[in-house]
Amino acid sequence: MVNRWKLTAELISFNRKELIMFRILLLCGFLAASLLGGEHPNLILKQSDLKSISLEKDKYPLFAQTLAAMKKDVDAEVQKPPDVPQPKDAAGYTHETHKKNYTVMYKAGILYAIYKDETYAKYIKDMLLKYAALYPTLGKHPAAASSSPGRLFWQSLNEANWLFYTSQAYDCIYNYLSAADRKLVEDNVLRKIAEFFVEEREEEFNLIHNHGTWSCAAVGIAGMVLNDKEYVEKALYGTKKNKTGGFLRQLDLLISPDGFYTEGAYYARYAMLPFYAFAEALENYDKSLKIFTYREEILKKYFYTTMQQTTGSGDFLPINDAIKFKNIQSPEIAFALNVVYHRYGQDKSLLEIAKKQNTVIINGSGLDVAKSLAAAKTLPMFKYNSGWYSDGAEGNEGGLGILRENDYSNTDIIAVLKATAHGLSHGHYDKLSLSYFDQGKEVIQDYASARFINVDPKWGGRYLPENKSYAMQSIAHNTVIVDEKSHYEGKIAIAEKYHPEQFIFDISNPEVKVMSAKDSTAYRGVKFHRTVALVSDKSIKKPIIIDVFRVVSDKEHQYDMPFYYMGHVINTDFTYTAFDKERKTLGKSAGYQHLWKEAEGNAGSNGYQFSWLQGERFYTITGAGDSTMKCIFTRIGATDPKFNLRNEAGLMMRKTAKEFTFANTIEAHGSFDGVREYTSGVYGEVNTVTVISSDNNYSVVKITGKTSLNWILIINNGAKSVKQKHTLTVDNKEYQWNGDYYLIKK
Amino acid sequence: MVNRWKLTAELISFNRKELIMFRILLLCGFLAASLLGGEHPNLILKQSDLKSISLEKDKYPLFAQTLAAMKKDVDAEVQKPPDVPQPKDAAGYTHETHKKNYTVMYKAGILYAIYKDETYAKYIKDMLLKYAALYPTLGKHPAAASSSPGRLFWQSLNEANWLFYTSQAYDCIYNYLSAADRKLVEDNVLRKIAEFFVEEREEEFNLIHNHGTWSCAAVGIAGMVLNDKEYVEKALYGTKKNKTGGFLRQLDLLISPDGFYTEGAYYARYAMLPFYAFAEALENYDKSLKIFTYREEILKKYFYTTMQQTTGSGDFLPINDAIKFKNIQSPEIAFALNVVYHRYGQDKSLLEIAKKQNTVIINGSGLDVAKSLAAAKTLPMFKYNSGWYSDGAEGNEGGLGILRENDYSNTDIIAVLKATAHGLSHGHYDKLSLSYFDQGKEVIQDYASARFINVDPKWGGRYLPENKSYAMQSIAHNTVIVDEKSHYEGKIAIAEKYHPEQFIFDISNPEVKVMSAKDSTAYRGVKFHRTVALVSDKSIKKPIIIDVFRVVSDKEHQYDMPFYYMGHVINTDFTYTAFDKERKTLGKSAGYQHLWKEAEGNAGSNGYQFSWLQGERFYTITGAGDSTMKCIFTRIGATDPKFNLRNEAGLMMRKTAKEFTFANTIEAHGSFDGVREYTSGVYGEVNTVTVISSDNNYSVVKITGKTSLNWILIINNGAKSVKQKHTLTVDNKEYQWNGDYYLIKK
Repeated sequence: MVNRWKLTAELISFNRKELIMFRILLLCGFLAASLLGGEHPNLILKQSDLKSISLEKDKYPLFAQTLAAMKKDVDAEVQKPPDVPQPKDAAGYTHETHKKNYTVMYKAGILYAIYKDETYAKYIKDMLLKYAALYPTLGKHPAAASSSPGRLFWQSLNEANWLFYTSQAYDCIYNYLSAADRKLVEDNVLRKIAEFFVEEREEEFNLIHNHGTWSCAAVGIAGMVLNDKEYVEKALYGTKKNKTGGFLRQLDLLISPDGFYTEGAYYARYAMLPFYAFAEALENYDKSLKIFTYREEILKKYFYTTMQQTTGSGDFLPINDAIKFKNIQSPEIAFALNVVYHRYGQDKSLLEIAKKQNTVIINGSGLDVAKSLAAAKTLPMFKYNSGWYSDGAEGNEGGLGILRENDYSNTDIIAVLKATAHGLSHGHYDKLSLSYFDQGKEVIQDYASARFINVDPKWGGRYLPENKSYAMQSIAHNTVIVDEKSHYEGKIAIAEKYHPEQFIFDISNPEVKVMSAKDSTAYRGVKFHRTVALVSDKSIKKPIIIDVFRVVSDKEHQYDMPFYYMGHVINTDFTYTAFDKERKTLGKSAGYQHLWKEAEGNAGSNGYQFSWLQGERFYTITGAGDSTMKCIFTRIGATDPKFNLRNEAGLMMRKTAKEFTFANTIEAHGSFDGVREYTSGVYGEVNTVTVISSDNNYSVVKITGKTSLNWILIINNGAKSVKQKHTLTVDNKEYQWNGDYYLIKK
Repeated sequence: MVNRWKLTAELISFNRKELIMFRILLLCGFLAASLLGGEHPNLILKQSDLKSISLEKDKYPLFAQTLAAMKKDVDAEVQKPPDVPQPKDAAGYTHETHKKNYTVMYKAGILYAIYKDETYAKYIKDMLLKYAALYPTLGKHPAAASSSPGRLFWQSLNEANWLFYTSQAYDCIYNYLSAADRKLVEDNVLRKIAEFFVEEREEEFNLIHNHGTWSCAAVGIAGMVLNDKEYVEKALYGTKKNKTGGFLRQLDLLISPDGFYTEGAYYARYAMLPFYAFAEALENYDKSLKIFTYREEILKKYFYTTMQQTTGSGDFLPINDAIKFKNIQSPEIAFALNVVYHRYGQDKSLLEIAKKQNTVIINGSGLDVAKSLAAAKTLPMFKYNSGWYSDGAEGNEGGLGILRENDYSNTDIIAVLKATAHGLSHGHYDKLSLSYFDQGKEVIQDYASARFINVDPKWGGRYLPENKSYAMQSIAHNTVIVDEKSHYEGKIAIAEKYHPEQFIFDISNPEVKVMSAKDSTAYRGVKFHRTVALVSDKSIKKPIIIDVFRVVSDKEHQYDMPFYYMGHVINTDFTYTAFDKERKTLGKSAGYQHLWKEAEGNAGSNGYQFSWLQGERFYTITGAGDSTMKCIFTRIGATDPKFNLRNEAGLMMRKTAKEFTFANTIEAHGSFDGVREYTSGVYGEVNTVTVISSDNNYSVVKITGKTSLNWILIINNGAKSVKQKHTLTVDNKEYQWNGDYYLIKK
């Protein structure tokens, strides 16, 4: 497999023919570019855009209102003298001020380009000259804690953001500035930061990671406005200009052929801005690069696959180090959507999302979207659907499986099986974990990251210590944990070498959608096979999840299988002891130290049942088990003296065995209408879940319900056999079928 | 004071003259009524309404859509055979079915009256005949646990609901039924239930309580359709017909002259339907009663005062046994709003609320609202404002104080001081507790009740045991608890005798709004005086709450003062020991057994500071204290083996002293925008809060801020002195002012 974190291996996969081709592309490109050299602005906002904008800026409500909001913001700021403080903190006043400065300059630049009002230009000029005075005096940022410090900011990532936006502002006022001022700004700031990235931060610049993408986009865009093709080349092909790093290499390696960005949707969103902004500027700078068709339109796939990783409230499906607040309204997504709309044939189903975003880019693409939205009589729905998104540069490193209750609907049930590769430095140690959404809400959650971004008293706004000690650990996820140790011993060096394998993905029958994956790498000598089926039936209003997690080893182990349900406990069918007068931690390490043990019981001979209320619906897990299985109520938040963790709950099943198959159904049922005080369907339909048999050939799981429901699910545990015929006798009856699973409804 | 729970005292206050007047009213009324006797329907939906409805039912969107939704619901139901099960459970299938039955009959009756489609009439007839067969066979409900059992339902309250709705359905199909069927239905069901209330449940019927209101409305409305004036008279004046009970007595005693309903907004909402529905039917039955002008338009005041007790999300301010889901969209409020609009001069500012409710009554009032809404070009805003709402039949039993940051705005800060009387059987033991809302959310919460209404596995949907052991106890509220015992020893018999006294309520200066109340009854030998000021200033974006709670005794006591903040801990300025590996309960009784002790520290010599994040804003409490004051982090949920409580957190200050003045500021500051990853103002403005002095004459509290803020608040602790001149020297400077408080901004 390709190791995308360390770069050593990449050189090999970059062959001579490609190199020559890129050199030719370079020559053509820069020849074309130099002809346009003198025109400003000419990056994302272009001279040609300005003509249509001046004619049409008030015609389309979304454009007009975005521009008016921008003007209102900036007009308030340009009254004040530019404030360029000495850098000090990581999330406090100086950090926020430098962030604000580049945002205001960027917007003021656009406004100057459109309105020609010199107030904006002068404000940018004055601020840039202050930066020109300050920047050369700076060393390493005093609050730098990361391995990649900046000068204006504690981490160089923010420095890249600064260069990215400021270069665009500079482009807008280029012709306003005197040659002397341009020289000052270019020499003392823009080139200094660009140089800082390609020299001092060379390793990060060449990194195949969102930090690298930001560095390249920033230096590349700066290169364009500085009319310095050296920077543009390095941004495209890495500092060695041989495609061992750089923008194109990132497009090759960070995104799978299915458009899955390896860190997950939260960072996919973050990297989307530099990817799309640099592409948009490049397309203008050098059309011959054909960046939007590069790698079979990889940028387009990247966008659409990221959109599929959202819930009904527009939030991104949280895996790895995600922060849960981000959603499709985030500005990065709005930016990319505008470009996608403009560059890839005006997909009208994007307009309903653009409407929710309620903002557009102030350039030709944004004008395009606003114009279409103003003209649209009805907005076709965006198609959210079920899908498997392979991970890995070559698409062969597992992937993310998503089953949706209904196509187009994003507020109905969504089941997510995480069978991806590790996901770089922000990856979590959870293979084959399940999360489950309904009503547009989390119902069985992935904790995601422990971080209060930009909140200074919370560890300077950085990832909290509990991110590593809890959130990244396997026990923070809905998967099997063996012997209270995390997958891959919680070590990135090991985790990056491996990934699960997809086994089943079949959505051909809308009544029975099935996904499964296998893993034999998370623990030495232990094999996982998890199957998640979403099954509809006329006897039930909402489809039922059947979740079968087979674990095999030749040694005895303790297997823990938690479900982090969201909501309030309603009912259990097993007895338990509540530790409700004195409470202790569940364990000592691997994240277990962060869980309170709230109660403990044993499953009955027919298994266990547990229900909870989340929002306006009830949910029930019914599982197979026996009286040797422990059912443990946990709550997050132990060993957390600074109250950094969210205190959410879980129910965990624990079984000691050589091999064991956890089989559960997850039902969504009834309704709870607090406003009208009307409740129905408090009890689910499923009575029992039984594992009839489970061996290296097949798992056979039987589900019986209160009324007519009587199902058997057979899963092939052998080799992949999509078209092979299987025969198996269950309960004295012989069944025959083709493929890797068979659902019998009696 | 008037004891509204026991009725014995009331007889005295009902004089002979009134009695004669009422007898005359009775005579006139029933004479008029008898002339109309034969017309059906003639209760809330009247013959005269039907004419306009048939002409205009499709003209106004809200009316048309409400009717269409009703039709859709009912059309689905009338396909099925009527299901009248043997009563069995308290929140399960039989309970929900009998509830559904009256709702469907009620709606089907309306539809029959409008569309003359006999499908509806036949459905009601068939169902009523089934009830006529079942009802006479029933004894006490098998799941009855309350002291007021019904027959169809576990509590007679639901039985009243059934009679109330079914009488209206019966009215609509009266002329459709044969005389024999009418006799069956009247004799076997309607009269039987009416009789059950006036005979068997006589005590409850005469009770001054929402149960009584429901009983009276149900029996009264049944009396009208049965053409039996005896029932109507008893409903109006009590079973003895001397106004010792009954509807008018309830209007006299349950609602204060300011329109405050003594149980609080949740039950105000609940009682609003029978109050308004009976009034609406009465107005039609006997105009001479002038029910809508009765007691200086008490019904109008009741409605508007209840509307003032809402937050920005439309939820009711939760005090006592409230359930937090209820809001202005609840059907009872929609019903009352329609009647208020129709009867009290078409207040156009109600229309924006009607729009949110998205439903109207299907009668003349509803048609009125829908028509106005269709005609309105703009909707004037409803005026939410600051106010003091006296409690008690005579308005002299304390009250509820509400300070709002801005008039009209309900999403800005709202501070609530609960200084009411006990609030009948659903009252909680918390005098002078404070709650605080912002962004339309709870920021410092009142726990309200512990109940999952209608959720069978949660104690049959009834109030949970933890309602009494925790939610009702003083420690569940933001007030002072002395020696770990609840106010009034947690005994209703004592609590009902007393109430706090309002001391200050002054909103004349929009920059400094102040309310305060005193209590010397919650504990023998301990006096409370709490002052809450909402202070704006040009140096701060949002006003600051100054909360001064003076406690005086001549013996030493332990004083606990909790704040149940909602959200996530951000920062503290004091050191503490976290019990994050082993956790115990805070106490043994009076609700303390339900709190986990999460951490404990000591205030510094300058007091303490604590901040948290709720939604998109930060909040900080800064308080006066010294190193002998404990600061204890608590979490609700100990001694709760069935997971019945919500696991929310509090910070509690503990001080042992004879007299002590808790002085705190509560600030709302900054913003946290997760979608845009932008954070500002993480730290508040206030540096320190100091009690310069506090004695029986004055409390003097000094507040200093980071920049220009430097305030002194002086509160008069002596007798009320609105116009008296005070002189006091503070920090060697003499201050002079008139009235009970003085805020000096230096």
